[in-house]
Amino acid sequence: MKLAVIYHSKTGNTKQAAEWIAEGMNRVGDVEAQAFSIDDADTAFIGEAKGVVIGCPSYMATMTPDMRTWLMQGGKLGLAGKLGGAFATEQYTHGGGEMVIQSLLTNELVFGMLCWSGGASLGKPVIHMGPIAVNGNMEPHNGMEHYREVFLIYGERFACKAAELFG
Amino acid sequence: MKLAVIYHSKTGNTKQAAEWIAEGMNRVGDVEAQAFSIDDADTAFIGEAKGVVIGCPSYMATMTPDMRTWLMQGGKLGLAGKLGGAFATEQYTHGGGEMVIQSLLTNELVFGMLCWSGGASLGKPVIHMGPIAVNGNMEPHNGMEHYREVFLIYGERFACKAAELFG
Amino acid sequence: MKLAVIYHSKTGNTKQAAEWIAEGMNRVGDVEAQAFSIDDADTAFIGEAKGVVIGCPSYMATMTPDMRTWLMQGGKLGLAGKLGGAFATEQYTHGGGEMVIQSLLTNELVFGMLCWSGGASLGKPVIHMGPIAVNGNMEPHNGMEHYREVFLIYGERFACKAAELFG
Amino acid sequence: MKLAVIYHSKTGNTKQAAEWIAEGMNRVGDVEAQAFSIDDADTAFIGEAKGVVIGCPSYMATMTPDMRTWLMQGGKLGLAGKLGGAFATEQYTHGGGEMVIQSLLTNELVFGMLCWSGGASLGKPVIHMGPIAVNGNMEPHNGMEHYREVFLIYGERFACKAAELFG
Repeated sequence: MKLAVIYHSKTGNTKQAAEWIAEGMNRVGDVEAQAFSIDDADTAFIGEAKGVVIGCPSYMATMTPDMRTWLMQGGKLGLAGKLGGAFATEQYTHGGGEMVIQSLLTNELVFGMLCWSGGASLGKPVIHMGPIAVNGNMEPHNGMEHYREVFLIYGERFACKAAELFG
Repeated sequence: MKLAVIYHSKTGNTKQAAEWIAEGMNRVGDVEAQAFSIDDADTAFIGEAKGVVIGCPSYMATMTPDMRTWLMQGGKLGLAGKLGGAFATEQYTHGGGEMVIQSLLTNELVFGMLCWSGGASLGKPVIHMGPIAVNGNMEPHNGMEHYREVFLIYGERFACKAAELFG
Repeated sequence: MKLAVIYHSKTGNTKQAAEWIAEGMNRVGDVEAQAFSIDDADTAFIGEAKGVVIGCPSYMATMTPDMRTWLMQGGKLGLAGKLGGAFATEQYTHGGGEMVIQSLLTNELVFGMLCWSGGASLGKPVIHMGPIAVNGNMEPHNGMEHYREVFLIYGERFACKAAELFG
Repeated sequence: MKLAVIYHSKTGNTKQAAEWIAEGMNRVGDVEAQAFSIDDADTAFIGEAKGVVIGCPSYMATMTPDMRTWLMQGGKLGLAGKLGGAFATEQYTHGGGEMVIQSLLTNELVFGMLCWSGGASLGKPVIHMGPIAVNGNMEPHNGMEHYREVFLIYGERFACKAAELFG
C-alpha cells in the first residue's frame, strides 16, 4: 500500500519532518511511503496512494503561498476518498502551526478526503489535529529533534489506520 | 447500519436541520438513522453507529456552551474510528456557522473520528466542510427552507460513504 | 482621513463588495475612502490611511492564492497600528467566507493592526467578524444585492471607529 | 489606567501565565493591571479597564467549557471599544492553544473590542496572535518557565498600546 507525504520546505526543517512521518509509515508492514516536495511531486505515486499527509511551515500564522497555490490543483490529483493528514513547522510555539494544519485539513475536506489524526484515541502522545515542530531559531529550549518521536508515531498511526481501512 | 445525528437546539431550527440530515441518511438502503438532542441522546445507539454528525447554532461565532460542555464527555461515547460530520445554523450569513463546524470537526479529530464532508468530489452542491442554514429572522431573503435540500443531500452522501467504508 | 479597501476579485463580485464598503465609509464626514485591487494598489494612499479593510473570495474555503501571495509583502506597507477589517464573498452559505475572514484578520494581527468589526456592540445587524456576500450562482435565493446594505453599514461603522480613534 | 487579565485555570498554569501578563503590564507607567479568575472577576474594575486580555487552557483543542460559558455574559461587561488580547496554555506544542486564542479573539470581536497582538511590528519575539505556554507534563523539553519572558513582553507591549490609544 502506497502512502505519500507532500511538503513545502524552504530551510529543510519541514522536509525533515515529512521524512520522519514517511519513516514512521514505513514501519508498518506492506507500506511503501515516500515524501515529496511540491516542486517534485510524483503525481502517479500520489494517485495510487491510499493516504496523503500534507505539511508546510507557518508564514504569518498561515500556510505558505507556495502551498496555497499548489493546492489549487489538488482537485486533479484524485485525492477524494483517501485518508488525509496534515502537519506544520513554526519558529515560535505560538507561531501559527495549528492554523496551518486547520487550513490544510479544510482543503483536504474540500477534496473529499477522510481527515484523521488519531487524536486522544490511541493514548499518549495525544495528537490533536496533527504534529507540529518548533525549530530552535527563536526558542532555544525548542528544536526539531524534540519532535522527531511524535512525527514517527504519527506516521506509524496513520499507516495503521490506512491499512485498516484500505489494506 | 446505524447512523446518528446529535444536535443542540434552542428554537427548533437546528433540530429541523438535524432531522433533514437523518432523513437524507435514511434514503440509503440498510441505514437506520436517528437524530438526538444532546439532552436526550441514546448513547447505546450512538455507540453502535458507524457514523455521527454533530451540529449546533452559532452563538457569538462559536459553538454553544451546552454543546461545548456536552462534548467533554465525548471520549466516553466511543466515537473513535467512526465517520464524523458537522453542521450549523446561524442568524446571519456571516454569523459564525463555519467557525462552529470547524470547532466541531476539531473535537471530532481529537476523539479519533474520520472527518468527511464530500467537499467538491461529488459535484454540486459542493459542501465544503458541512452544511449551514441561515434562518430568516435577520435576513428576510434567507430562511431554513432554502437549505432543506442541501441537508438532505449531505445526509445521503454521508450515509453512502459510511456504507462504503463500514457497510 | 484616508481609509483603504483592498481586494482580490475575479468575477467582479468582490470588487462590488469592496466598493460598497468604501461608499459606506465616505458617508462619514472628513473621510476619503478608496477601494483598490491588489493588482493596482496605491501604496502611498494605503500608507497614509488610518484604516484598511481587506477582502477576497473563498476558494476551497481558504483565501485565494493571489491574496495570500500579496499579503506576504504586507510588512512593507506600514500597516502596523492601523484599524483593520476583513470581508469575503462566496458561492455557498457554507462556502468558507468566514474562514477567509479569520485568516485575513490573523494576517492583520501579524502586521500589528487593530482588528475591529463592531460585532454586536452597535445593534443590528450584528457583524460578527466582517461582512460576507453570497452570490446567486449556486443558491438562487441569494445574490450580491441582498448584502449591499450590510456592506454599506460595515463601511460606515468602520469609518466612525477610525475617526474616533485617529480622527 | 486600569488593565485586566481574565483567566480560567484548573492546575494553576494559566493563572501563572495571566499573572506574568499583568506583571508585564505593570512595568508601564500609570498602569494598574490585575489578573482575575472567571470565578472571582471584579466586574467594576473590568468595566473601568481600557484593555482586557482573556486566556484559558486548551481542552481538546478548544477553549474550556467554563470559559465558553462565562463569555456568554461578556455583553454585559461593557467590553466594546476596549483593547483586546488573548493567550492560552496547552500540554503539547500541537495541543490547540492557537485554536483557543483564535476563538477568544473571535468572541472579543463580537463584543466590539479592538483586537491587537503586536504581531511582527515590534521586532522579536514576534507574537502572532497571542502568547502560548506549553507545560512540561508531556513534553519534557518544555515547561512554563520557558515562556515567562514572552508573557511579560506581551503584557508590556499591550499596556504601551493601550496607553498610546487611551492613556
